[in-house]
Amino acid sequence: MINPQGYKWFFETTTPAEGHMHAIKRTVVEARTKFQHVEIMETTSYGKVLILDGRIQSSQTDEFIYHEALVHPGMLATEAPPRSALVIGGGEGATLREVLKYPSIARAVMVDIDGEVVELCKKHLPEMHRGAFEDKRTEVRAEDARGYLEKTSDRFDFITVDLVEPLEEGPACMLFTKEFYTLVRDRLTPAGAMTMQAGMTKLGELAFYTALHRTLREVFPVVAGYQTFISCFGTPWGFITATKKVDPRRLDTQTVDKLIAERVKGPLDYWDGQTHQHAFSLPKFIRKAIDAQTRVVTDAHPLIMA
Amino acid sequence: MINPQGYKWFFETTTPAEGHMHAIKRTVVEARTKFQHVEIMETTSYGKVLILDGRIQSSQTDEFIYHEALVHPGMLATEAPPRSALVIGGGEGATLREVLKYPSIARAVMVDIDGEVVELCKKHLPEMHRGAFEDKRTEVRAEDARGYLEKTSDRFDFITVDLVEPLEEGPACMLFTKEFYTLVRDRLTPAGAMTMQAGMTKLGELAFYTALHRTLREVFPVVAGYQTFISCFGTPWGFITATKKVDPRRLDTQTVDKLIAERVKGPLDYWDGQTHQHAFSLPKFIRKAIDAQTRVVTDAHPLIMA
Amino acid sequence: MINPQGYKWFFETTTPAEGHMHAIKRTVVEARTKFQHVEIMETTSYGKVLILDGRIQSSQTDEFIYHEALVHPGMLATEAPPRSALVIGGGEGATLREVLKYPSIARAVMVDIDGEVVELCKKHLPEMHRGAFEDKRTEVRAEDARGYLEKTSDRFDFITVDLVEPLEEGPACMLFTKEFYTLVRDRLTPAGAMTMQAGMTKLGELAFYTALHRTLREVFPVVAGYQTFISCFGTPWGFITATKKVDPRRLDTQTVDKLIAERVKGPLDYWDGQTHQHAFSLPKFIRKAIDAQTRVVTDAHPLIMA
Amino acid sequence: MINPQGYKWFFETTTPAEGHMHAIKRTVVEARTKFQHVEIMETTSYGKVLILDGRIQSSQTDEFIYHEALVHPGMLATEAPPRSALVIGGGEGATLREVLKYPSIARAVMVDIDGEVVELCKKHLPEMHRGAFEDKRTEVRAEDARGYLEKTSDRFDFITVDLVEPLEEGPACMLFTKEFYTLVRDRLTPAGAMTMQAGMTKLGELAFYTALHRTLREVFPVVAGYQTFISCFGTPWGFITATKKVDPRRLDTQTVDKLIAERVKGPLDYWDGQTHQHAFSLPKFIRKAIDAQTRVVTDAHPLIMA
Repeated sequence: MINPQGYKWFFETTTPAEGHMHAIKRTVVEARTKFQHVEIMETTSYGKVLILDGRIQSSQTDEFIYHEALVHPGMLATEAPPRSALVIGGGEGATLREVLKYPSIARAVMVDIDGEVVELCKKHLPEMHRGAFEDKRTEVRAEDARGYLEKTSDRFDFITVDLVEPLEEGPACMLFTKEFYTLVRDRLTPAGAMTMQAGMTKLGELAFYTALHRTLREVFPVVAGYQTFISCFGTPWGFITATKKVDPRRLDTQTVDKLIAERVKGPLDYWDGQTHQHAFSLPKFIRKAIDAQTRVVTDAHPLIMA
Repeated sequence: MINPQGYKWFFETTTPAEGHMHAIKRTVVEARTKFQHVEIMETTSYGKVLILDGRIQSSQTDEFIYHEALVHPGMLATEAPPRSALVIGGGEGATLREVLKYPSIARAVMVDIDGEVVELCKKHLPEMHRGAFEDKRTEVRAEDARGYLEKTSDRFDFITVDLVEPLEEGPACMLFTKEFYTLVRDRLTPAGAMTMQAGMTKLGELAFYTALHRTLREVFPVVAGYQTFISCFGTPWGFITATKKVDPRRLDTQTVDKLIAERVKGPLDYWDGQTHQHAFSLPKFIRKAIDAQTRVVTDAHPLIMA
Repeated sequence: MINPQGYKWFFETTTPAEGHMHAIKRTVVEARTKFQHVEIMETTSYGKVLILDGRIQSSQTDEFIYHEALVHPGMLATEAPPRSALVIGGGEGATLREVLKYPSIARAVMVDIDGEVVELCKKHLPEMHRGAFEDKRTEVRAEDARGYLEKTSDRFDFITVDLVEPLEEGPACMLFTKEFYTLVRDRLTPAGAMTMQAGMTKLGELAFYTALHRTLREVFPVVAGYQTFISCFGTPWGFITATKKVDPRRLDTQTVDKLIAERVKGPLDYWDGQTHQHAFSLPKFIRKAIDAQTRVVTDAHPLIMA
Repeated sequence: MINPQGYKWFFETTTPAEGHMHAIKRTVVEARTKFQHVEIMETTSYGKVLILDGRIQSSQTDEFIYHEALVHPGMLATEAPPRSALVIGGGEGATLREVLKYPSIARAVMVDIDGEVVELCKKHLPEMHRGAFEDKRTEVRAEDARGYLEKTSDRFDFITVDLVEPLEEGPACMLFTKEFYTLVRDRLTPAGAMTMQAGMTKLGELAFYTALHRTLREVFPVVAGYQTFISCFGTPWGFITATKKVDPRRLDTQTVDKLIAERVKGPLDYWDGQTHQHAFSLPKFIRKAIDAQTRVVTDAHPLIMA
């Protein structure tokens, strides 16, 4: 065997000439839904991982990093403690779980077009959702997020967009455009905040991240990029917080720690004041790439992950 | 072919169940020196890479991240502009190159036991050393660093330790112990600073990094860990600055930018005030692991990379 | 993805420096029995494959080559049409299936120590057993083959040994020794024949095959090695027929075809007169290696696959 | 490291979902000629290997199998001992080496379009050519084989075609057509013989082999396919002998051994009477595929390796 710890390996290429690999212990479940190929496998190093169309979404071992990074910078950047939240995507239920850590939240809506993925995660990833789907504040809708936003008259203090990057032209592209972010902004309360996962921030692979950053700046007065390393991806990952008022970059270590203490029930494993500084202090080459980017993504000219 | 961009791949496992892979374009040179196996290969994604005993040391594309991160936090943490520097290891000459960017440096000694590696890098990696070996302030010595430190009566404002982690018990182990760091401290001037590369800082793989951090705290009054993602390694990498006086964590963004402007000739590509905050603001789980570590590495109980 | 046809790969090394790899479609079932790790996975190229302790045993697409090669040279080398047969190992049921193609067979006993593997194959590999377990001539026993042979007073016209090579010292080693083959011989009828799978016959990897060949020559008057390429293994595979009377190497093309026509119900997909010549005509380097081998494997000095 | 024997691996896929891999020790030489990418690397298991456009051509360890199989079946199938031979392709010089083992050969012409490959092999693969290029009977021409055959008035007792299968439409395609084989036939003496390498003979991958077989039957009265396992390819390989008179399939073991004794100087390592039976006795599924093939390859409809 190639390795005493396993003869099956999962390969994920970040570019056609570079990849990351994991020894596989077993496949927990595998299915093709109406929208995508889904697999939950158990890896030797990271426990269970969710894979959509061949790309790791999250792992049992380090999902706390991803999901805390996705949620808290926005939930802490609303003017007042957030009372309502909308999760777009986020099938594992872990994004929802982080949102529900705020006792101020009275209502948490999750809109994921792929109800089958949500069901598979409910059943096979209890380590991730930890009961979030059963919380009485939760409302799960299996429908297209754009359609939902267009028709709803609800407003949210926090909206997070936890979607897979589009690999080909199709409806998913329409969730990464100026028009879509305008809709998101309009459904936010006056001092609300949004966050999103925004692709890798590896040197030389910044086109996706910076285009989304540039696009959001067309729509929001405050756009703050941040990033952190996601171990099982083998690459740092970019996120963006966009708000109507509060700039999370202006929150110092003590303020973040104080906000967490005030707003969040129970301790966080990843996010705190110093992690906040780590994530929002972007290395120079990322800032330069953001500044150099001119592309605004629109419905007419959508973005496709190469 | 497995991939249109190459049929030869370099594999580097970070654990027995996880790895990172690169498509190889060609082998530039390969040799077995008295101390180690050396290879310089050209990869599709990162240009030339230096590989010692099967482990990537640096790549043409992202070595500026590694070498700026290794050098500047220490060179900026001496009380006065540093006049003398000692580079331990650092065969590529890029560590030396960063040191020489300080006009205040009158003398830069580089001690690398493997003179053959230095010669191969001189010849095949001009993109990395960029003439550093020809600088009249440079003095290169092919000898054991510990022996050199023991016998020299010289004192340095800055010392950096750029050595491969030991894979087996042997002389290399003796360069990662309390006794060795005590020697380093004693050869520093009263307000001098040292830095070192200290292994990966990936979740679950922190034993090496935290043990070195703990060990340095036995020797130096100020020990400041920091880290950044090295793209071609596929993992974030840890460094430590240890000083007799200045605490680099207390330098705010503006101060770092001001120090760089004052001390360094020409702009840096990676390091600046905000990158400094990014690197020294350690994520919570790393700080917790550092705090939990009790192991002090000594000559009697050396550290070996698993 | 590393390959458009799959992001999961199965690796099997034939030596520590050479391997064969298959894209995996899905895992059908995976279990750890009392004796071994079992997995049935579906590959892109070969359909379902049975894997025991990380080694491919057979694939849906090319198992007809393996199982016909294992069974027919012996079933055709009994003096009279065989009436009784014993299959040792052969969990998939495909070895049994080939035996049952002979209407002369009145009784077919299969002894496989791992009843759990047999049950998994029954359920998940109907393409392989094709009802063999339901044949009224079939008798399946889940017990140690050596113990069975020691205590049974039955005699068989044909015995086939379809066992995984031992990877470590243990009871499995005792099924590859002179003493074991003596037992097999003694349970054969006076003009009976045995066959066995005997490991790879790749250049440079002949130690296992030749030692078994040499060992059988201590026990049987006729020992005839043969081999054929098993596609999903990526290497040719060795078998041995040992008999008390008939030498299968003396059967010419026409005779083999005639014997098949007389003895076998329905056509075979792989074995016929010309395939017989192909398999029993060993390339020169294999014959030389057989002739050079002096090792006789005994209970006291068992053979372990490196 | 992924494997103690090497961190660099060569991958060769036989289909997009199956591959064979070798640990690499070092690259001996690498170049891009006018016609192709050439690399000679040293592998752990097979010594030096020649790789053209990413595909292994031959290895130091098992090239005797490939080159003896390519040459001797044809050299033994001429009516009288061959006096003149033409090698088309065969850059390593090993095909030539086998031809020169016949003292009856007075002239051996080798035509390989890629003179640079020939020079690289001369310099770096002395283990393969073993002085064949210096033999006074040898004449090496760097030109297009088809053009050479069209203009030459020479006739040869033996012609062998040792060319890489075409991966894309181009001049190489014109060396695998009925028109080309007609030229070859016309340049053979009345009782001459040709041989060729004809692609893999793995189950399910027989389209190339069988089409060439079918095409040659349009041109030659005797077309005899044969095959053998080439270890470093991880797959059996097909060859074809086509003659104007002698049918090599009619040569029994003793006759082949006698012919070798009469015609060849020095012993062969691979080919002899029994190896001949092994190779020319095609397994049933290959014969069936040959019989089922109807495609004749022509200049107008050339064959391209998928």
